[in-house]
Amino acid sequence: MPDDADFEMDWDRETRTGVSEAVLCGHKSPPQIAAIVAAAQDAGRRLLLTRLTAEAFAALEAGTRALLDYEAASGTAVLGGRLAASPIAGIGIVAAGTSDMPVAMEAARSLAFHGYDAPVIADVGVAGLWRLMRRIEEIRRFDAVIAVAGMEGALFSVLAGLVEAPVVAVPTSVGYGVSFGGRSALHAALASCAPGLVVVNIDNGFGAASAAIKMLRIGRRR
Amino acid sequence: MPDDADFEMDWDRETRTGVSEAVLCGHKSPPQIAAIVAAAQDAGRRLLLTRLTAEAFAALEAGTRALLDYEAASGTAVLGGRLAASPIAGIGIVAAGTSDMPVAMEAARSLAFHGYDAPVIADVGVAGLWRLMRRIEEIRRFDAVIAVAGMEGALFSVLAGLVEAPVVAVPTSVGYGVSFGGRSALHAALASCAPGLVVVNIDNGFGAASAAIKMLRIGRRR
Amino acid sequence: MPDDADFEMDWDRETRTGVSEAVLCGHKSPPQIAAIVAAAQDAGRRLLLTRLTAEAFAALEAGTRALLDYEAASGTAVLGGRLAASPIAGIGIVAAGTSDMPVAMEAARSLAFHGYDAPVIADVGVAGLWRLMRRIEEIRRFDAVIAVAGMEGALFSVLAGLVEAPVVAVPTSVGYGVSFGGRSALHAALASCAPGLVVVNIDNGFGAASAAIKMLRIGRRR
Amino acid sequence: MPDDADFEMDWDRETRTGVSEAVLCGHKSPPQIAAIVAAAQDAGRRLLLTRLTAEAFAALEAGTRALLDYEAASGTAVLGGRLAASPIAGIGIVAAGTSDMPVAMEAARSLAFHGYDAPVIADVGVAGLWRLMRRIEEIRRFDAVIAVAGMEGALFSVLAGLVEAPVVAVPTSVGYGVSFGGRSALHAALASCAPGLVVVNIDNGFGAASAAIKMLRIGRRR
Amino acid sequence: MPDDADFEMDWDRETRTGVSEAVLCGHKSPPQIAAIVAAAQDAGRRLLLTRLTAEAFAALEAGTRALLDYEAASGTAVLGGRLAASPIAGIGIVAAGTSDMPVAMEAARSLAFHGYDAPVIADVGVAGLWRLMRRIEEIRRFDAVIAVAGMEGALFSVLAGLVEAPVVAVPTSVGYGVSFGGRSALHAALASCAPGLVVVNIDNGFGAASAAIKMLRIGRRR
Amino acid sequence: MPDDADFEMDWDRETRTGVSEAVLCGHKSPPQIAAIVAAAQDAGRRLLLTRLTAEAFAALEAGTRALLDYEAASGTAVLGGRLAASPIAGIGIVAAGTSDMPVAMEAARSLAFHGYDAPVIADVGVAGLWRLMRRIEEIRRFDAVIAVAGMEGALFSVLAGLVEAPVVAVPTSVGYGVSFGGRSALHAALASCAPGLVVVNIDNGFGAASAAIKMLRIGRRR
Amino acid sequence: MPDDADFEMDWDRETRTGVSEAVLCGHKSPPQIAAIVAAAQDAGRRLLLTRLTAEAFAALEAGTRALLDYEAASGTAVLGGRLAASPIAGIGIVAAGTSDMPVAMEAARSLAFHGYDAPVIADVGVAGLWRLMRRIEEIRRFDAVIAVAGMEGALFSVLAGLVEAPVVAVPTSVGYGVSFGGRSALHAALASCAPGLVVVNIDNGFGAASAAIKMLRIGRRR
Amino acid sequence: MPDDADFEMDWDRETRTGVSEAVLCGHKSPPQIAAIVAAAQDAGRRLLLTRLTAEAFAALEAGTRALLDYEAASGTAVLGGRLAASPIAGIGIVAAGTSDMPVAMEAARSLAFHGYDAPVIADVGVAGLWRLMRRIEEIRRFDAVIAVAGMEGALFSVLAGLVEAPVVAVPTSVGYGVSFGGRSALHAALASCAPGLVVVNIDNGFGAASAAIKMLRIGRRR
Repeated sequence: MPDDADFEMDWDRETRTGVSEAVLCGHKSPPQIAAIVAAAQDAGRRLLLTRLTAEAFAALEAGTRALLDYEAASGTAVLGGRLAASPIAGIGIVAAGTSDMPVAMEAARSLAFHGYDAPVIADVGVAGLWRLMRRIEEIRRFDAVIAVAGMEGALFSVLAGLVEAPVVAVPTSVGYGVSFGGRSALHAALASCAPGLVVVNIDNGFGAASAAIKMLRIGRRR
Repeated sequence: MPDDADFEMDWDRETRTGVSEAVLCGHKSPPQIAAIVAAAQDAGRRLLLTRLTAEAFAALEAGTRALLDYEAASGTAVLGGRLAASPIAGIGIVAAGTSDMPVAMEAARSLAFHGYDAPVIADVGVAGLWRLMRRIEEIRRFDAVIAVAGMEGALFSVLAGLVEAPVVAVPTSVGYGVSFGGRSALHAALASCAPGLVVVNIDNGFGAASAAIKMLRIGRRR
Repeated sequence: MPDDADFEMDWDRETRTGVSEAVLCGHKSPPQIAAIVAAAQDAGRRLLLTRLTAEAFAALEAGTRALLDYEAASGTAVLGGRLAASPIAGIGIVAAGTSDMPVAMEAARSLAFHGYDAPVIADVGVAGLWRLMRRIEEIRRFDAVIAVAGMEGALFSVLAGLVEAPVVAVPTSVGYGVSFGGRSALHAALASCAPGLVVVNIDNGFGAASAAIKMLRIGRRR
Repeated sequence: MPDDADFEMDWDRETRTGVSEAVLCGHKSPPQIAAIVAAAQDAGRRLLLTRLTAEAFAALEAGTRALLDYEAASGTAVLGGRLAASPIAGIGIVAAGTSDMPVAMEAARSLAFHGYDAPVIADVGVAGLWRLMRRIEEIRRFDAVIAVAGMEGALFSVLAGLVEAPVVAVPTSVGYGVSFGGRSALHAALASCAPGLVVVNIDNGFGAASAAIKMLRIGRRR
Repeated sequence: MPDDADFEMDWDRETRTGVSEAVLCGHKSPPQIAAIVAAAQDAGRRLLLTRLTAEAFAALEAGTRALLDYEAASGTAVLGGRLAASPIAGIGIVAAGTSDMPVAMEAARSLAFHGYDAPVIADVGVAGLWRLMRRIEEIRRFDAVIAVAGMEGALFSVLAGLVEAPVVAVPTSVGYGVSFGGRSALHAALASCAPGLVVVNIDNGFGAASAAIKMLRIGRRR
Repeated sequence: MPDDADFEMDWDRETRTGVSEAVLCGHKSPPQIAAIVAAAQDAGRRLLLTRLTAEAFAALEAGTRALLDYEAASGTAVLGGRLAASPIAGIGIVAAGTSDMPVAMEAARSLAFHGYDAPVIADVGVAGLWRLMRRIEEIRRFDAVIAVAGMEGALFSVLAGLVEAPVVAVPTSVGYGVSFGGRSALHAALASCAPGLVVVNIDNGFGAASAAIKMLRIGRRR
Repeated sequence: MPDDADFEMDWDRETRTGVSEAVLCGHKSPPQIAAIVAAAQDAGRRLLLTRLTAEAFAALEAGTRALLDYEAASGTAVLGGRLAASPIAGIGIVAAGTSDMPVAMEAARSLAFHGYDAPVIADVGVAGLWRLMRRIEEIRRFDAVIAVAGMEGALFSVLAGLVEAPVVAVPTSVGYGVSFGGRSALHAALASCAPGLVVVNIDNGFGAASAAIKMLRIGRRR
Repeated sequence: MPDDADFEMDWDRETRTGVSEAVLCGHKSPPQIAAIVAAAQDAGRRLLLTRLTAEAFAALEAGTRALLDYEAASGTAVLGGRLAASPIAGIGIVAAGTSDMPVAMEAARSLAFHGYDAPVIADVGVAGLWRLMRRIEEIRRFDAVIAVAGMEGALFSVLAGLVEAPVVAVPTSVGYGVSFGGRSALHAALASCAPGLVVVNIDNGFGAASAAIKMLRIGRRR
């Protein structure tokens, strides 16, 4: 590749926008990923990588792998360890089913990278409504809620109608047939008339975490 | 039009399948509709017409109009009056919002045409879950439930997870943007993992009524 | 994964809705599947697993595999053996082609899990209409019919126009080109004007079985 | 409009391809249509116009209207009257329902323009299969069959499985919901495994007529 | 309509979720709208109506119209006048073009109904980037930003990369061809990698306002 | 699998419709394919198999493979050898590019199975128009033309405007991006105003062959 | 509307990019259009308006109308008259059919506004290839070609394979059925393998003109 | 394959259109590719191959591989080495992110094959706007700009609003969820109102290079 095609990290994004840039690894080759990690290491920067499959992680050299705290289920890796500060509370993650856990974990790991500690409340799909209702008081205490669901995404409407906090819907690609790789859940979230429900891209746990962080920072700015 | 293009009603459909043919008026011209009504009148048959807009009804001649019991909100008309037998109970209609009422009424009128009396339980959208929960015991008493909802269609999953009866989902074209003329509600119904949920075409109140009637006839056949 | 992310089976679904929850394995990892089987075993519960591929089954530990009655063609597994009661008749499965058999078998296995014995009438696609007509009297004796077809799904309309029982259409992902992974068959089923035809998601044999069971229970409730 | 933008009829198309060009009026303004009719009149040519709505026909000047044999149901007009030769038999048109008649008539009028006399066999939708079977021997005598159906388009598969002649499917925009303006019927025709079934665009009665004419001409060329 | 089909407002939604229910008038008949207004008037409740076209407003009786503060450009009406409290600042609305103003105004009016005073910064589409950059410092002072754009929706990514506040994207149905009634702008918002960008349905100014209100309430709850 | 799920070949299809049934192997397991071949062998029938990949062919037992004349590029196999009669001429196959050859060969092999010998004229895509024009006189001599093209499918319109014979368009899944797996070529064929152009499913070489055979049989029937 | 929502023309766009901003009137109200015209008049600027329907033009006040040179077929209006300089040649417009003329004229009028004089070569659809071939030498003399076609858009591939100049394809919304409002022609243009073919949005004659102008300016910059 | 199915290169395309034909290898088998290379070698022609994966390249025989200058990241190969003439400047390539580099490199290699030397300016996605602005003066010096971006494609609008040169947008299939394999970026490019922006197929770096070459040749022709 030519010299003038070097990558260019947006290191100041956190200062400018309150959230760090993450490296979305899905379409990057192992050499590209390794080069980005090396650049961050050289610059003394922490780094969050997402959509890093087990195969792609294994294809990295041992030296690079050793630098990273990798978690396979969520496909996330962290360079530079935990933040020193004590974790910040206020954000909760609600997941409809077991199959939605990888996306919920991407959100949880992204929050942890930024210093937030968010519990995951799982298996509360609304086809068995009692599961959600049993834990609704716990959920109502969060300042911002990340809701993760695939298939028909009915959780989003029900949940957003029950809590005062803003709800960030993350549709997942879980399902088959007319689930259309997450589009039915996405459309369900967008078409809902439940108040204060906002939506991010299919499987975008990192994006939901970023939005929730920005919401919690409002109070501190004022 | 040539002589050999005459229409041909399926008069024996009720005998063969348990449900009468209905005349779907949406793509038929007023002369075509009038000819069908006249043929039924001549044959001494009762007839159900659906998707008959106020404009199309007004375009019929006065003589034809006088034969029909027309209801504008649901766009349905009946030739031949009520059945003599006392109405049959067991089917309930549940509608998410006020805007879904025309479709719910098409189902109710189709059931009435066949001798079934079905109450409509309206405005129980799950973004305000208490509205559904307040009436759930009443709904649980039905042998078959017709659920009518547009927008994101979350009602279907929640309802089907709460009742023992089979639930026939009728997605409606209510909504805007990603509601896509009812497709998001349709996909929500199909992608749901709630047990025993079956689906008919968008706005197809007549089809849901036909299915519910066939379900109730099972018990009587055995 | 965090402690508060444990899965939560809806054990009471059968009591509440008349049909058991099934474990849809398509998006679950082998450890997740094994944990669910273990929990059911500990709780003394029978369990139905669907969409369990031969690869995923082989990836389970031998101990887990030994607990399961696995059938590869339909991708279903049962924990806890057959029900003691004698099988219940009344439901029939009609499949258009050889390629539709895996979905037909998912329906048959789901019915068997709940105590119903349903014959499969196969290879009756309507491009060779005599095949269906030769067996139509046999099909007319069922109280509820599950119809399984891919490609253009013309079987649904023809069949529903010939029988008195309600017909549950299961479109399959069989086909190529404009079959669109089952969507053309799905749309054919939904757009049909045949009376009493209801539809479930593409390839959803379990859902069709659940709906048919609920229909047959109506007679017994009354 | 500039001089160099004059329209240019393909007057030799019939000589070159066996079928005349038709003027598709849907997107043309009344002045454009009038100019084309005048040019054909000047050149002493016969002309077929399709998709000419009653509103567009009424917007033409009286002199132009007087030249045309207009038929409103099919939206077709002919300049130059009937062909002198006696009509050619061998093509039949089969229409599923009353609502499909306008498209069936566009095919019939297009055939008549080229000298073919094609009977229309209507109201033979397969949800009431006996209607088709009662007339199947008559249909089997045609050398080429044009099949016209909307909604789920199941007629195409059944019919093509019963006759020896090639079948040209014309999906129509009749239906609602998932009929998607004719796309479900179109996909049904294309996805069918019935042999010798070929397809033209939605509502394209003229195109089906052109194809059938070309098929019949094969025998005469050889 | 039957007695048991009465509508049922979710009057407690504001208490439960922090935002009032609004009446989406798009699919409701004038009598339905009038009945809802009357019920709110009787209950002494304030009410926000959205998607109320000039035609629908004109079709209401004079008595009902007199109760409402109607604004035609945004299609919104308010029953019950302004809140007594002084307006709350912190939310800004940024609109790409003149054609996006109706949706921006729906958001502004929804915010005003709840007591928030939000300035609208218009005509800052990024094809002329200097227009946005000239006002970016002003925009950076908001605690939450509502961004309104149609066509290709490039404003969302650029804006969200420049501000610290969370950005709620409202895609609009402005555009033609591949704008697909707002879907291209919607997909642009969802597919963006800009941090903290969340999305609501096409043209859903009310939904964006609800979400922004919930975000600002976080600080006050803590 | 249960006994009553046995497959059922439509052996009389050739007598009834003029074209044999083919076995579409795409969704069938090797045991299913082997059973069908064995049944045909037992019945003394010739058999055509399509969409038989090299992997699937290799998975058949040696005994089955030995019975079949397999051609890998087209994915077709024939049981029972060539027809005794001398090959019938009159059908030509025109393919736009090298990548379209597998589909063109499926058509050629299907024709050969039925006794027709059809030359393939390849690499005549219209972006280099001289290639088509150089061979157009040869093409004009066919009684029926099968046109095979992917990508944007412009060949269909140009070709059908140049020949007197009917043209059967076979869109192929060749291309990328907006080729959408053959849908753009399919839509180009259907939306064309060239006369006498008819269309089959994407990649359906067998279907095009069946249609062409039926067309040529017209002359012999009369 | 609030004061801070005033529109903001990008007056310097021509200086910065070589092409003026045009006012797309499709989603703008008559008062919005009038205000923009008034602002341009006050600033002594020339202005091009597109997608201005006859109804919208008639709804403007007489004073505003008098300022504009309006052309109804193309829906364009010009404020400020012709440029003084003599027209620049080099760009040609090629349109497939009569129905494509409004879009071709939008391109021609946009070019004229910027001082370019572009002939329109119409009715050269490739289903009658001789029409295009008769004029191809004339077309080959242009430095840049704008091609305008709807339906299946086969003109784009054929034309771009015949000329040395770059070809800008403008798909039009002309057609019906699978033409999908211009999407099939759009996809045909994009999927073509003809070299140097570039594409703009459906019906976007102005965009094609802008691109052609920029291309011709390259030579003058160097 | 039969003898009359031989491929036919369009060797004169460069003379006729100014750009050579490239061999799109995506759907071609290794023997087909080898035969084309051999024919070019025999004819003494240079040849550009695109979409040649590392697997496909490895499947070629060593003799063929030795003839080719293969570059894996872009999937391109060149037969016949570099042009003797000194490279031509004037075209620049701008890529939004690291993942877009393979498509940018396909464009760069296609340009180099034709004798153009085009620098690649990478990692200038507009979510971090400063990265683009830092290099905008450099970009403004190009005569034609190729812009490469996936995900939401906001780069296209911003860039085209800042430069005087024509901009050729190449949407890439980079992204997930609603990126829809590049369609969202494609629609963003087409729906943009930025002047002079033209578009090629998803991932079509070669097509963009061809268009840019044709644009630069205008100046030399005049």
